[in-house]
Amino acid sequence: MIKATVYVTIKQSVLDPQGNAVQGALHSMGFQEVGQVRVGKYMELTLNTTDRREAETRLKEMCEKLLANTVIEDYRFELEGL
Amino acid sequence: MIKATVYVTIKQSVLDPQGNAVQGALHSMGFQEVGQVRVGKYMELTLNTTDRREAETRLKEMCEKLLANTVIEDYRFELEGL
Repeated sequence: MIKATVYVTIKQSVLDPQGNAVQGALHSMGFQEVGQVRVGKYMELTLNTTDRREAETRLKEMCEKLLANTVIEDYRFELEGL
Repeated sequence: MIKATVYVTIKQSVLDPQGNAVQGALHSMGFQEVGQVRVGKYMELTLNTTDRREAETRLKEMCEKLLANTVIEDYRFELEGL
């Protein structure tokens, strides 16, 4: 079994309204030191396979097809044997 | 300036409907090897401070008060000097 961790982030060139909202909220709560905030997604998946290379290929496909919107988002992932 | 990365995940004992939806979608797309899926949040913040210890205390406060719902979510963060 392989544990995969996927990070999906909004591309630097794309506006992040959610990040801006979080930044505004933190400022209004007195956290003036907060600069840029970017919000992304973090996913943990278990894959019922032991073939690391196959897992990598398949996970890339999952990211491209469903997990990330590659027009506005970047993704990266880590694999870890269990 | 300090770069903080915050990971917010749903506690293991709490149901994750979004994770289940992603799992179902992946299965229906032919990714049968996918087991459990948990979806969390990933945030990158820049903090205009150089005091690492202070940044840690303040970030903990931000997580407890706004970034994570500690009733159902866990959080962890990493700090990195820029």
